Amino acid sequence: MTFVRNAWYVAAWSAEVPEDRPFSRTLLGEPVMLFRDAQGRALALADRCPHRFAPLHKGDVRDGTVGCPYHGLRFDGTGRCTLNPHGDGRIPEAARVRSYPLCERHGAIWIWMGEPARVDAANAALPDFSFIDPAQNEVSTGYLRTRAHYQLSADNLLDLSHFQYLHPDTLGSAAIARDPGRFAQAGDTVRAHRCAQAEELPSFVAQAFGVPAGMRVDRHLEVRWDPPGLMAIDVGVAPAGMPHGRVSRSAHLLTPETRTSTHYFFAFGVPKTLGAAARMLVDYALAGLMTPFRDEDLPMLEAQQAALGDADFWACRPVLLPIDGGAIRARRVMESKLAEEAQ
Amino acid sequence: MTFVRNAWYVAAWSAEVPEDRPFSRTLLGEPVMLFRDAQGRALALADRCPHRFAPLHKGDVRDGTVGCPYHGLRFDGTGRCTLNPHGDGRIPEAARVRSYPLCERHGAIWIWMGEPARVDAANAALPDFSFIDPAQNEVSTGYLRTRAHYQLSADNLLDLSHFQYLHPDTLGSAAIARDPGRFAQAGDTVRAHRCAQAEELPSFVAQAFGVPAGMRVDRHLEVRWDPPGLMAIDVGVAPAGMPHGRVSRSAHLLTPETRTSTHYFFAFGVPKTLGAAARMLVDYALAGLMTPFRDEDLPMLEAQQAALGDADFWACRPVLLPIDGGAIRARRVMESKLAEEAQ
Amino acid sequence: MTFVRNAWYVAAWSAEVPEDRPFSRTLLGEPVMLFRDAQGRALALADRCPHRFAPLHKGDVRDGTVGCPYHGLRFDGTGRCTLNPHGDGRIPEAARVRSYPLCERHGAIWIWMGEPARVDAANAALPDFSFIDPAQNEVSTGYLRTRAHYQLSADNLLDLSHFQYLHPDTLGSAAIARDPGRFAQAGDTVRAHRCAQAEELPSFVAQAFGVPAGMRVDRHLEVRWDPPGLMAIDVGVAPAGMPHGRVSRSAHLLTPETRTSTHYFFAFGVPKTLGAAARMLVDYALAGLMTPFRDEDLPMLEAQQAALGDADFWACRPVLLPIDGGAIRARRVMESKLAEEAQ
Ligand code: FES
Ligand code: FES
Ligand code: FES
Repeated sequence: MTFVRNAWYVAAWSAEVPEDRPFSRTLLGEPVMLFRDAQGRALALADRCPHRFAPLHKGDVRDGTVGCPYHGLRFDGTGRCTLNPHGDGRIPEAARVRSYPLCERHGAIWIWMGEPARVDAANAALPDFSFIDPAQNEVSTGYLRTRAHYQLSADNLLDLSHFQYLHPDTLGSAAIARDPGRFAQAGDTVRAHRCAQAEELPSFVAQAFGVPAGMRVDRHLEVRWDPPGLMAIDVGVAPAGMPHGRVSRSAHLLTPETRTSTHYFFAFGVPKTLGAAARMLVDYALAGLMTPFRDEDLPMLEAQQAALGDADFWACRPVLLPIDGGAIRARRVMESKLAEEAQ
Repeated sequence: MTFVRNAWYVAAWSAEVPEDRPFSRTLLGEPVMLFRDAQGRALALADRCPHRFAPLHKGDVRDGTVGCPYHGLRFDGTGRCTLNPHGDGRIPEAARVRSYPLCERHGAIWIWMGEPARVDAANAALPDFSFIDPAQNEVSTGYLRTRAHYQLSADNLLDLSHFQYLHPDTLGSAAIARDPGRFAQAGDTVRAHRCAQAEELPSFVAQAFGVPAGMRVDRHLEVRWDPPGLMAIDVGVAPAGMPHGRVSRSAHLLTPETRTSTHYFFAFGVPKTLGAAARMLVDYALAGLMTPFRDEDLPMLEAQQAALGDADFWACRPVLLPIDGGAIRARRVMESKLAEEAQ
Repeated sequence: MTFVRNAWYVAAWSAEVPEDRPFSRTLLGEPVMLFRDAQGRALALADRCPHRFAPLHKGDVRDGTVGCPYHGLRFDGTGRCTLNPHGDGRIPEAARVRSYPLCERHGAIWIWMGEPARVDAANAALPDFSFIDPAQNEVSTGYLRTRAHYQLSADNLLDLSHFQYLHPDTLGSAAIARDPGRFAQAGDTVRAHRCAQAEELPSFVAQAFGVPAGMRVDRHLEVRWDPPGLMAIDVGVAPAGMPHGRVSRSAHLLTPETRTSTHYFFAFGVPKTLGAAARMLVDYALAGLMTPFRDEDLPMLEAQQAALGDADFWACRPVLLPIDGGAIRARRVMESKLAEEAQ
């Protein structure tokens, strides 16, 4: 078993799938086509016509059906063939495409590629990402494709001690680096906490929080991880010694493209109740963090994958440090889920 | 067995192999070098020196021999080493290159990569392509390399119902699409017929046939396939209801480069007896069809191959439609030939 | 066993590894990082952090240690972890990187990737390359990466009969080509000798030796090969029939990058005692030979490798000619070393 299948994965940001034409993406190693019906409801089919294997996403969308670009068979959102334009128009029984349950929530389209019978239970258990729901929040979203196993990204985000080394110009601080971190697990949810007391913020962060230069603050980093790779990071900043301050929240959602590549969806949300500043804040966060994500994290993740090659992570016998407490817990959760599905 | 070997394949258009230097191409997975002797006769050798495996096509041609570019051994068209320029010049018995029977016919160089003893029988059975022979015809030739199994191209050409979907701007018509087609097999030859009655031609086709805008015509598409992938397409256009009209003929000759890539040779021929118009007609056909072939068929074929990956076509369990009647027959002929050669 | 490991290989020219930052190169299939300590001494580590497999060469060098670019562990030249910047700073026993013995000699950094216990014996046996030592010589150095097995380069250099065919414009001469060559082996050292009597030199060579146009000379080519691929070529030119003339010396040092790619280090050295001319001569040699090496030898080697694919050299049953006497002896030496290490 390569992937945990009984889980909701993000397939796309809602805005990536337009009303009038299909969108395609490889998810868990399978080419998938997304489109919308007349009501705007998102639908997902295997991106491969059962007739001669043409890519359906190159076809046209009409009335909730997609037409194959090669010989024009049409399929609806359940994968049923609704039109054979040739001869007497009979439709062979086998002319069906696999369809995948979808739900659209918090500005993202989520896909279920596992056993259909288990959708509902999972549904109820989806962790809270309402803080990036565009109904109540100003949101900025980003996407990066990483040629590395998705668990390497989870490792990265569950251990923010790397700020000081990998992102010295934007996020790093000696104080954050010093804290070995605290880790906790409740059910399948893993949490990592790291804080810096009375530190002077790096200037990018200071500006994001509106902290005047030279002011000392306490900074808290709270990372929440849920399987299969759904993460929330809260950054709290308060004047040194004060209990309350401002919190910035971001979502980091990992979907395997293949065994060695990952779709990384990230988003910043600020409640609309904050008024005009909300839009500015999320735009500032995205603009400022895209650079370290793309130019520092991404090459590191890809270099790790290159070093691993086809080998299993544990087979390479990584040295464990206290800072790995969160990453290791998350890996254990995924391994037990994989083992369970393999039964 | 990957390829049917006891068959004539097109190795090159005659004009691709000049008088004075070698030409190379991978055919049926093997690198082959073509060159001409002093009489202009085309010759073919394995493109690999038996001494240190240098590519012979980088050498020089002289008096019907080719010199290896590395240490200068020379080989004639039978593959015999004729010169060792070093020391006492003795020529080891093993210094031989495989040579392949060739014939030059109808403006193409045909190669035989199977058992030499079976050449002559096959020779007699070569289907008629005299309509592209430059002696009697104005001819325009084209070439495309497709990263897809050659049988996918045969499927494509044996089922022209795709005109309406893949080539809506040039060849498509609802009438052609509606006809389920008729298929016949005689010996190893497969024929597919499709027609549209009283249709208004797409403007590219109308112009090719000199049909005035708005005039209703009957259009007949006759496809002839012979193993291993030698195809002729006749398009007949006549005023609606009339028995006779103009016929345009083209050749479509498929040679596997590797298991998943194909040399696609195509040509249009018009009898020189038609006078000055003949040249114009074949140039118009080539200019007009290069675009759909290269920008519509080729990407579709490559997308099909990408979807198949390394899997066998039948293992992917394609849905069969009535329009596949010709393609399926051709695949069966090839499969029985492969099975026969495997014995 | 893919590589002979108990041997000194050139890892880099000394000048490639600066004082202040790491340098990386894949050697014998393993990523290696080279750097210098405060005294300028060259050090080599496996280029892979034992924590999360980050490439160490992307880190910073300080006081003879390199810092991992991901979470800041530091390692010294023995591979020992000297700093864990997180939490209580404890350093796990397993936090070690493999280090490789190095020596710096004759302007090159040599690496030992075999059993440490066998370094000293090998050390004593290193063949003489003092003629490219920058202390006593003007030296020009070159580097090319070749996508071909390193033994194909040794074949190339041990058989200079290819001058006439592959390098007709610079080095070739009919007289050199005619000589079948003489070969000798003493211990593991293989020698090849080839000469041309009373020939008119090709103009590039004539100029390199200061020979006036039209003058007849004797040219001697002496090639010395030692395992694993350490070669010296002496070219001697004397007026026809005279015993003494000028000798030009070059080193050709082959290090496998992978099974099918090679680092080719070459250098020309002329004693400083020659005065100002020495610099001019080595610059002239490098400038003149880079072109045939890069544009003629390299594509030939890569074409040979492409023809071999994954197959073993002998499995492809090369035809043996008398000119191969040196190349075959060198291959036999390497095969017996591989067999010995496999025990
Ligand atoms: S490939 Fe889809 S209809 Fe033929
Ligand atoms: S490789 Fe052809 S003669 Fe040596
Ligand atoms: S990967 Fe090197 S310190 Fe973490």
